[in-house]
Amino acid sequence: MAQDLVIGIDVGGQTTKCGVVDARGTVVEQTVIRTDTYEEVEPFIAELAEALNRIVAEAKAEGCIRGIGVGAPNGNYYTGAIESAPNLKWGHHKVEFAKLLSEQMNGIPVSLTNDANAAAVGEMTYGAARGMKNFIMITLGTGVGSGIVIDGKVVYGHDGFAGELGHTCAVRHNGRACNCGKNGCLEAYCSAIGVARTAREWLEMTDEPSLLRSLDKISSKDVYEAAKEGDKLAVKIFEYTGRILGEKLADFIEFSAPEAIVLFGGLARAKEFLTEPIQKAMDENVLALWRGKVKLVYSQLKESDAAILGASALAWEL
Amino acid sequence: MAQDLVIGIDVGGQTTKCGVVDARGTVVEQTVIRTDTYEEVEPFIAELAEALNRIVAEAKAEGCIRGIGVGAPNGNYYTGAIESAPNLKWGHHKVEFAKLLSEQMNGIPVSLTNDANAAAVGEMTYGAARGMKNFIMITLGTGVGSGIVIDGKVVYGHDGFAGELGHTCAVRHNGRACNCGKNGCLEAYCSAIGVARTAREWLEMTDEPSLLRSLDKISSKDVYEAAKEGDKLAVKIFEYTGRILGEKLADFIEFSAPEAIVLFGGLARAKEFLTEPIQKAMDENVLALWRGKVKLVYSQLKESDAAILGASALAWEL
Repeated sequence: MAQDLVIGIDVGGQTTKCGVVDARGTVVEQTVIRTDTYEEVEPFIAELAEALNRIVAEAKAEGCIRGIGVGAPNGNYYTGAIESAPNLKWGHHKVEFAKLLSEQMNGIPVSLTNDANAAAVGEMTYGAARGMKNFIMITLGTGVGSGIVIDGKVVYGHDGFAGELGHTCAVRHNGRACNCGKNGCLEAYCSAIGVARTAREWLEMTDEPSLLRSLDKISSKDVYEAAKEGDKLAVKIFEYTGRILGEKLADFIEFSAPEAIVLFGGLARAKEFLTEPIQKAMDENVLALWRGKVKLVYSQLKESDAAILGASALAWEL
Repeated sequence: MAQDLVIGIDVGGQTTKCGVVDARGTVVEQTVIRTDTYEEVEPFIAELAEALNRIVAEAKAEGCIRGIGVGAPNGNYYTGAIESAPNLKWGHHKVEFAKLLSEQMNGIPVSLTNDANAAAVGEMTYGAARGMKNFIMITLGTGVGSGIVIDGKVVYGHDGFAGELGHTCAVRHNGRACNCGKNGCLEAYCSAIGVARTAREWLEMTDEPSLLRSLDKISSKDVYEAAKEGDKLAVKIFEYTGRILGEKLADFIEFSAPEAIVLFGGLARAKEFLTEPIQKAMDENVLALWRGKVKLVYSQLKESDAAILGASALAWEL
């Protein structure tokens, strides 16, 4: 008998990755299509369905697809819609993405949520959070996302948008402007963009020598490379970033008492510089009853597959 | 046939209130015993069982008691134990309270949690949160407690102690020392004790005239009375308190996207001075998608019955 398989789709601003995934978390077939060449959602969905049918055929999986999981910016689990996603050309209004895609895919059920929630489900199904019922996933990418799992279920809240921990307040007074329109958000400090901004600010404010001074434009990757070469300022930037993140993680622990915090995303690659300051700030700021007890772990999903795996994991729950 | 009834017990540092409650939330019989005259838990439980049997007899409810719910400081829902409760003379170690009480009560099942979680269940069963699946209860008493409800269930977390929002950080730098040993906790500002402390600090720091200057010792109740008489300083103290609470509520909304925040406790009586600053700070600090959408409501339980009702509501879930 044919094996049960699922499809995972990660909708990004520029490209959309999709793959056929088996129950052990192996991406059997995958492909990428562009997102940003479409002004309207319908032709995009049509090309997406074509791409899916192609990889399903390549995987010899016709008739074996149990469900489709989608991770998308501003994806609402309850409605299956993408709501006001500024990074998607066709996403400015409410787009009934799950419904449209299911129609194009002969009624295969489609489950949709935002990318960070999808990552949390992926980690619970195939990764570092296997067997955990209570954990918080923090994605440290261009922005800071989060997926909160309580009692084995992702928290969606009253309206489907719960888990915006990147926009909780990290710096109350004179905090940096965040893309969301607020000031002082965690994302403004602990994202890739936040780290680059810290670097620029510190280079301007001090005379401290640094490899970073020779660069025209600084990215968080540059800061990481400099830190690896022993650049003291770069190391201090990660200490600062880790401290701010650890302080907020303490708050989050007091909310839902998770077994672990799982870190994921490009910035998490700098773990040799981030782990210690995060752990220290977390322990200094949390109630004694949790001190030293909440694990700080890193994603175990292969980075190139993680987005597809996360989304695909949603489909197993259908 | 006899009606199903439950027992609610609120264990406090000085007294323990208990009552027989019907399905509509009427406290049919109630009594109070002292907590602080016992050094050991066994004789306390023996007297408690005696008191319970007495009110059950008075309610003519022998054989009708479906379960017993207990709200107690540091009560752990998973284990039924009270763990390291500094305010209970017999509570310094782990006390298997639910098990001991059930044994004394002929095996009637006993469910136990902390007082704020009990209050949340009470509000969901009989009060302002009836029909709500996602809300956060904040108890503004001597301290600041919280009970978080997601998908119709109280969040207990990995270890049973989730929902310590009173100890999330409200003031990061030079924050007030909190009883928990940390600095800057929400509880150090937005509890009855916090309000009294704000009053003392402000009276010392400024020359502003105030009715409060004539008092030897200031309680939060004094500040409330003064505000009601139009005392400007007292009104400003509530504005400050409300702003700090509203700022943190915004963070909490970004965590679990609740339908409502429910406020409860002695300090919540000052709602005519607190509501506006709380709402304003909440809306200014939350992501646009929730602005003006999350209800701020006050407990609908009669204050004298609330503790018993909250605890009793746990028993219906047994």
